[in-house]
Amino acid sequence: MTTHRFAADRWHNVLGTLPPALTVASGDTVVTETLDAGGFDRDGVKRAAEPNPMNGPIFVVGAEPGDALKVEIVRMTPARATGWTRASLAANVVDPETVRSLPPRDKANWRIDLQASTAVLDPPVPGLEHLVLPLEPMIGCFGVAPDMGQAFSTATSAENGGNMDYRGFGPGATAWFPVAVPGALFFLGDCHAAQGDGEIVGTGIETAYEVEVRLTVEKGRRLVWPRGENARDIFSVGNARPLDQALQHATTDMFEWLQNDYGLGPAAASHLMGQVVRYDIGNVFDPAYTVVCRIEKKWLPPRQG
Amino acid sequence: MTTHRFAADRWHNVLGTLPPALTVASGDTVVTETLDAGGFDRDGVKRAAEPNPMNGPIFVVGAEPGDALKVEIVRMTPARATGWTRASLAANVVDPETVRSLPPRDKANWRIDLQASTAVLDPPVPGLEHLVLPLEPMIGCFGVAPDMGQAFSTATSAENGGNMDYRGFGPGATAWFPVAVPGALFFLGDCHAAQGDGEIVGTGIETAYEVEVRLTVEKGRRLVWPRGENARDIFSVGNARPLDQALQHATTDMFEWLQNDYGLGPAAASHLMGQVVRYDIGNVFDPAYTVVCRIEKKWLPPRQG
Amino acid sequence: MTTHRFAADRWHNVLGTLPPALTVASGDTVVTETLDAGGFDRDGVKRAAEPNPMNGPIFVVGAEPGDALKVEIVRMTPARATGWTRASLAANVVDPETVRSLPPRDKANWRIDLQASTAVLDPPVPGLEHLVLPLEPMIGCFGVAPDMGQAFSTATSAENGGNMDYRGFGPGATAWFPVAVPGALFFLGDCHAAQGDGEIVGTGIETAYEVEVRLTVEKGRRLVWPRGENARDIFSVGNARPLDQALQHATTDMFEWLQNDYGLGPAAASHLMGQVVRYDIGNVFDPAYTVVCRIEKKWLPPRQG
Amino acid sequence: MTTHRFAADRWHNVLGTLPPALTVASGDTVVTETLDAGGFDRDGVKRAAEPNPMNGPIFVVGAEPGDALKVEIVRMTPARATGWTRASLAANVVDPETVRSLPPRDKANWRIDLQASTAVLDPPVPGLEHLVLPLEPMIGCFGVAPDMGQAFSTATSAENGGNMDYRGFGPGATAWFPVAVPGALFFLGDCHAAQGDGEIVGTGIETAYEVEVRLTVEKGRRLVWPRGENARDIFSVGNARPLDQALQHATTDMFEWLQNDYGLGPAAASHLMGQVVRYDIGNVFDPAYTVVCRIEKKWLPPRQG
Repeated sequence: MTTHRFAADRWHNVLGTLPPALTVASGDTVVTETLDAGGFDRDGVKRAAEPNPMNGPIFVVGAEPGDALKVEIVRMTPARATGWTRASLAANVVDPETVRSLPPRDKANWRIDLQASTAVLDPPVPGLEHLVLPLEPMIGCFGVAPDMGQAFSTATSAENGGNMDYRGFGPGATAWFPVAVPGALFFLGDCHAAQGDGEIVGTGIETAYEVEVRLTVEKGRRLVWPRGENARDIFSVGNARPLDQALQHATTDMFEWLQNDYGLGPAAASHLMGQVVRYDIGNVFDPAYTVVCRIEKKWLPPRQG
Repeated sequence: MTTHRFAADRWHNVLGTLPPALTVASGDTVVTETLDAGGFDRDGVKRAAEPNPMNGPIFVVGAEPGDALKVEIVRMTPARATGWTRASLAANVVDPETVRSLPPRDKANWRIDLQASTAVLDPPVPGLEHLVLPLEPMIGCFGVAPDMGQAFSTATSAENGGNMDYRGFGPGATAWFPVAVPGALFFLGDCHAAQGDGEIVGTGIETAYEVEVRLTVEKGRRLVWPRGENARDIFSVGNARPLDQALQHATTDMFEWLQNDYGLGPAAASHLMGQVVRYDIGNVFDPAYTVVCRIEKKWLPPRQG
Repeated sequence: MTTHRFAADRWHNVLGTLPPALTVASGDTVVTETLDAGGFDRDGVKRAAEPNPMNGPIFVVGAEPGDALKVEIVRMTPARATGWTRASLAANVVDPETVRSLPPRDKANWRIDLQASTAVLDPPVPGLEHLVLPLEPMIGCFGVAPDMGQAFSTATSAENGGNMDYRGFGPGATAWFPVAVPGALFFLGDCHAAQGDGEIVGTGIETAYEVEVRLTVEKGRRLVWPRGENARDIFSVGNARPLDQALQHATTDMFEWLQNDYGLGPAAASHLMGQVVRYDIGNVFDPAYTVVCRIEKKWLPPRQG
Repeated sequence: MTTHRFAADRWHNVLGTLPPALTVASGDTVVTETLDAGGFDRDGVKRAAEPNPMNGPIFVVGAEPGDALKVEIVRMTPARATGWTRASLAANVVDPETVRSLPPRDKANWRIDLQASTAVLDPPVPGLEHLVLPLEPMIGCFGVAPDMGQAFSTATSAENGGNMDYRGFGPGATAWFPVAVPGALFFLGDCHAAQGDGEIVGTGIETAYEVEVRLTVEKGRRLVWPRGENARDIFSVGNARPLDQALQHATTDMFEWLQNDYGLGPAAASHLMGQVVRYDIGNVFDPAYTVVCRIEKKWLPPRQG
């Protein structure tokens, strides 16, 4: 198990079948520093174009279509003492007539205290002088190349992952992606120091991060959608518009998961989901929205096989 | 402040302008026993028609259009040792082609242990023999009469509340409804012993409950949507289809709330919401879906005025 | 077969179970003059409150739940030489960010030439001096009382009809509504001198009309949604949000219709619909949108039974 | 102006930046034969993979990002005496609970009479023995490469066109696409002999066609969405899910078009659209739905500039 220090020198605005920037073995760890969503690095220097420039792709030896790529998010360390957000709710998250009274979508600056692990608006905004947010880092955009030679903008998400903007994808969490091309071709970037549900101003606190991930091939998992796990939960991720369809994808995936891996029949899976499921909204801003269907592991029967 | 013991002897399947069953003063407490969603009482006797028969309406003296009716959920005590659910995911929460493989929407029975405050499937379902759910009671359907002489089925929800099926409406929570008619005309029923997010099998654990609520008029609040509060959070409730629109309603309402009651400008309200907001899905089953926009009180500036 | 001249002296803003204003026999004709959507009569006098004040209800003797009320629109004669519209696209029909650049929702006046049967903006609007619209009258809002004691605002629509704003409901067309209460309780109003698809400025050309309709009970039809017919087509109407669900309702209803009344199996009904169906969008402005699924009669097999 | 006979020998399942198969000058005409949606050629031989294999890409000299590619559909001649469809409504176009009673999604065969220009089910389906459909050919999937190196499956559609499945894209119609890469990179395929609105069985009558198109670069048009024109109408095309968003895109594009090219102010554009616009549903089956916003040319003011 090798640890690779991967210093990207070019970045991508799509997840697609592109020449690998790094090749690793299954089980290897990668440490890499990401640009912020606008392409600015740890020194505030613009290094790449918007939106959400990606490090990668990383070719994982042995990954083939039908496998899953397991991504353990080992560590996220902020690399810059500033971050930025947008200063207005996005037009699509309020009632249409209310859009007329939204403020301009200006950029706002946040000061990140790397010692205290907090963020504050800088300069302060009247009424929010008290607001000191603890850092809750997350990877906004990561995933693998889609099938058939498709290539998707890093502004959006799909079965292959991408710009899901889910708070749950932080240190300690594990993600799985359905591998669609040889080597999986893993991309990551767009890290947030904090973010509310839905990314409803169109950003989290956007900044540069050093990220450590462990990449492992799991053979023949035949996933359809991204999945995840943390100390408390397992979860399925649906990416689509509208929210109703994203929720259908995530719910269907969890329904299949409980039947295939936990030995439940369809009625038992329904019973369990009906009474214990939790939904999170990853983002409701990007072209595809993200809904997460989540179950605490304490409710699960033993895993089969 | 009087406590009224209200024994309903007729029930309603709409929230509308109907003759009051009880008249109370602002600040009074009402203790009443509700039927389950199918109209069955504490003894399992069918007393009223589906869906979701309501106790009420309760006329609150002094309530006028433009006021808010504050409803403190003081206590919910299960009144029956059995509950029921449906045994299949609802067709609208899975991918359309998956509907072909859903199980039948049979009724399943749960045994409620009133001492231990738990519920188990009875008879057990293979694979879920271990599943012992703690009771987390909630009011599925409550609210006030809508304006203009409208009357809405207790299967759905709107600005006036109704069948929101939100887990957050349990003991210790407070709800506010926009008063649209003199006396507010408050209805309640359809209590659940537990329920997952979204009510995705179309039911929680449906049973009879004794509910204690305190009803208080707050003058001139001019609410548009139901709101709520508990020890940790304040929240706005949007009821509509699709989820996207329910979320727009809830988000818009929170945006207004922060500006009107907490003295934030639109940019400050956007900043706060963007980084700390949480969304819950009440139900994604009824004709109108319910989305809740929630903020922890620790993030709020001091309340104005 | 009697013809009733019905002069309304009160109007309603809901479709619900209200005291009949007129009782007629099945097969009778009613001639009545409607107010415009804002409650103004033929002389421009405000007679009733917004939205969409209704004439009625009309009790049709013999109509029982499970029957259909057939409404033949015999004639619509404009009763006023002026109409009005809104001067801006509705906020919900454009991309959310575009709302910021919409014009104000001012009221605009149209001059109706009763001889020429045309309408022009008055005063003229720069760039549209050439625009002379032929009158294409339609009933914006009509239907019957819903079931269970429900009562719905005339701003919206549902299984019982209501504010569907479909161009196809003009002279020569026949509509059927599912009867939910004894006597059906028929309401009508909100006539338009012309309207584009979707009612995307939130109005057609709103004016007062004299309307002649023939009301006939058809026993035991067991409709779920409104249906219609004209010289060329049969059509099913779905009312819901979003458009996707309105379309599902209309499509499902046509699918049932072809099987039940035209003797087609589900595969044959699918084949026919797949290759010849047409969709119209009634309105995409009201709380519930309206989608129409339409088939030219020349493609239909002979009607059964 | 050259006419190119282009015999494809490889096909693509994405619209993306791929090596050109043919290079033409602006104004040139291309005659090419397309495979059906399943990859079968004029002889029924499988030549390429599903879905919707494309001929192309065709590099049009002089086309640059910001230009429009004008595509005149000069002629479509059926190349095979058979076509196929699916025998069931798609699960997503009916009410979710109705999916349980849909027939299997079998393939059905149609016999195409090249002389009479008609199509009939073969073998006949009971109840539809009378059904003889006139051919109304259309291009199901065509468009240009998207920007940023993206590549989209031919199952879906976006700003660059793609699988729009709109009946209006037949002989005599002109389409415009926003050019995003040098040479535009034009693709086409998936022709239908006939199709109802919405492509609600998931197919039109799928067959091989010889298509003649004229490709012309229009400099600096700065389109966002595809547009079209025929003898009667101009129209804007929105591709997205849900229908509500596709409609917003098409409506916004028409609103911009009337202001930029026809000299109308926003209120005048609203007035015209509000009273004369027509909506068509291209498809309501693919991952992105297609809604068309259409205006008869007789209502338009003179074109500016």
